[in-house]
Amino acid sequence: MDRKIEVSQEGHLLLGGCDAVKLAKQYGTPLYVMDETAVREAMRAYRQSIEEFYGGRGLICYASKAFACKEIYRIADEEGLGADVVSGGELYTALKAGFPAEKLVFHGNNKTDAELKMALENGVGRIVADSIEEVEGLSALAAELGCEAPILLRVTPGIDAHTHEFIRTGQIDSKFGLTLETGEAMEGVKKALALPSVRLLGLHCHIGSQIMDAAPFIHAGEVMMGFIAEIKAQTGVTLAELNLGGGFGIRYHEGDDPIAYAAYMAEVSEAIRKTADAKGIPTPFILMEPGRSIVGEAGTTLYTVGRRKEIPGVRTYISVDGGMSDNPRYILYQAKYDFLLANRAADRADETVTVAGKCCESGDLLGEGVSLPHAGPGDILAVCCTGAYNYSMASNYNRNPIPPVVMVRDGESRVIVKGQRYEDLIQYDV
Amino acid sequence: MDRKIEVSQEGHLLLGGCDAVKLAKQYGTPLYVMDETAVREAMRAYRQSIEEFYGGRGLICYASKAFACKEIYRIADEEGLGADVVSGGELYTALKAGFPAEKLVFHGNNKTDAELKMALENGVGRIVADSIEEVEGLSALAAELGCEAPILLRVTPGIDAHTHEFIRTGQIDSKFGLTLETGEAMEGVKKALALPSVRLLGLHCHIGSQIMDAAPFIHAGEVMMGFIAEIKAQTGVTLAELNLGGGFGIRYHEGDDPIAYAAYMAEVSEAIRKTADAKGIPTPFILMEPGRSIVGEAGTTLYTVGRRKEIPGVRTYISVDGGMSDNPRYILYQAKYDFLLANRAADRADETVTVAGKCCESGDLLGEGVSLPHAGPGDILAVCCTGAYNYSMASNYNRNPIPPVVMVRDGESRVIVKGQRYEDLIQYDV
Repeated sequence: MDRKIEVSQEGHLLLGGCDAVKLAKQYGTPLYVMDETAVREAMRAYRQSIEEFYGGRGLICYASKAFACKEIYRIADEEGLGADVVSGGELYTALKAGFPAEKLVFHGNNKTDAELKMALENGVGRIVADSIEEVEGLSALAAELGCEAPILLRVTPGIDAHTHEFIRTGQIDSKFGLTLETGEAMEGVKKALALPSVRLLGLHCHIGSQIMDAAPFIHAGEVMMGFIAEIKAQTGVTLAELNLGGGFGIRYHEGDDPIAYAAYMAEVSEAIRKTADAKGIPTPFILMEPGRSIVGEAGTTLYTVGRRKEIPGVRTYISVDGGMSDNPRYILYQAKYDFLLANRAADRADETVTVAGKCCESGDLLGEGVSLPHAGPGDILAVCCTGAYNYSMASNYNRNPIPPVVMVRDGESRVIVKGQRYEDLIQYDV
Repeated sequence: MDRKIEVSQEGHLLLGGCDAVKLAKQYGTPLYVMDETAVREAMRAYRQSIEEFYGGRGLICYASKAFACKEIYRIADEEGLGADVVSGGELYTALKAGFPAEKLVFHGNNKTDAELKMALENGVGRIVADSIEEVEGLSALAAELGCEAPILLRVTPGIDAHTHEFIRTGQIDSKFGLTLETGEAMEGVKKALALPSVRLLGLHCHIGSQIMDAAPFIHAGEVMMGFIAEIKAQTGVTLAELNLGGGFGIRYHEGDDPIAYAAYMAEVSEAIRKTADAKGIPTPFILMEPGRSIVGEAGTTLYTVGRRKEIPGVRTYISVDGGMSDNPRYILYQAKYDFLLANRAADRADETVTVAGKCCESGDLLGEGVSLPHAGPGDILAVCCTGAYNYSMASNYNRNPIPPVVMVRDGESRVIVKGQRYEDLIQYDV
């Protein structure tokens, strides 16, 4: 493991200046820890890259499905970001956190009528319409409510971003969006331009997740700019906004080598400017939707090691007091993480183990082939880069309570999501 | 689809005598529906097979991780079953439902000290010790509490039950139990017999899940009986109980062909009697832990169809108003289900579609290659056999509220788990 970490004189892992072992003791384990400085720095890096390479003509929208709770919306707002919500529940949470509705982008392949109504009534700034039927529905609904629906149209540009099958969305075979190749997207644009009570602001595309390379983004930008030019040619209308979605990869594990956001922005901006010049259209206002790359590396999960099971000639299992209920990404995608012992963070790894969760399921592992110093009962295990798609995907499987989320910064810690107690587990049971 | 279903004169699917379309309207969708009669009949079938083939010398323990809420524990108790719990949260729920602690079996590869204490203080009837360290810990803890810990020792008998890799647990490479081949299991038995404050009642094994064939169970029974004989030979002690775990397959889909429980019981009972005779030991008291096979087929999830997306030459997507947040088994295991239209249940399937969820993730599908009558917005889609590992694995991913669970019986319906509202989603957010 060559991840850059901070270690105290006692050899304890430091997270946002806080001793991870003390955090584990104070709040109990499992514990989600989120480094506020890292979150804010990632948000600023995105904003600055838009300033530097695109003249500030864009809005970074935090894709909150990666990690949603009231506090993260507040932080995104403080940092001048917009936010991307994908359900009535996320929209509700953002609004309750005081997030400005006009800076929200509302996504979904199958938003319900109730969700669309909620978005319109609350003045959501951009609704990403995913189908012609949704454009029609929005027109009718907005007319009924006496407002205008501000929409982007989601287009599937037919780009395969070579990532895990489950998280690849830009190719033609997708439940999302209007297909470019078949003419469906152009038909949707014309419909949106023709219908009353909808205002077509621009287009959206999203080509996948955890993408490590600028090339597919550049390609998507070029394809979308070409489509904007084609729309102008066919309708006379120049769409002013282009939402390039998210999907920027992070460094989960030593094999991962993501591109720096600034380099990405520089290359994509250049490609968009060039295409705009070549096609004789103005450069659009840009939206981008990073989620994982804002919160992923900022998060660390702390567990207490329980059982150690050595099977001679087979492998050694180290079991922790959480598992697939708080981090389902291993069982879902065989996701790879870096691990370290928080209470002996400077010790050299001297064995290879399998880290197992406590759920009653063989597949409930957090990692295989994990290099660690010899670990046993009472050690505090830290799993790095768990800020995205861990808390947000957590379940009560096995009726395990969902752990709290603690935010750390400059040596101080505070709870931003309270942990569940046993009483909470039966609150809905009759 | 040749599943036996009941259809009303209007062509609506009937569940427990209730019109599924009316249920969807009354309670909203997504909706988990559980057929009480089917649950009770499955429980009775297990009990009766123990009576018929094994002289009643056994206890069926409902494996509640498949579907846990207060009401299911009450029903299991009314039907004379024990229950298997795998966490403090399940134990808490069972106790709050008034389930008799002495009929609980407590499992887990990595129970925490707090959970073990909770089990001992509440008089749990059997704690399945998963390691030598846990036996030692229980001895110390029970001494401290002035009680005796009643234990079964979990043994991994080294049997490969040829099921999905994630849910196969009897092979030697498992996070669970004490390995038979390496001598660890025998060492554990001797330790348990020697230590004060623990009472070794017997052995436990669990060879996997969704197993379609009696042979691996028979083999496991024989291996475990051989081990009981070997324990007697080495220590003079005849263990009185054998817990054969769970893992009985159900018919999720037309390709599945599970063995009938009665036939299973007949064969396994015979094998155990024969081995007992051959080894000169008495037949043990038997415990079995069916979960999925009790609740799986009793459950149906109802969704409302929203978007229909046809991609010519590729496929047609039908999107529903739920998805991986209420049923993660497709994205986890590519689990196959039978689907039907609840509002046109007698119609012949005339197309093949992909059923997609509403979560903002490409992998959020519920089924591919699904035969259905032409379906579109407003149709009610029923997914069969979702009683197990659906509600219990549900999450708030995308901040989707978890749907309610409604129990149906003889034309009457009642809520047994209340659905979440948006307000519930932010109850832990600071």
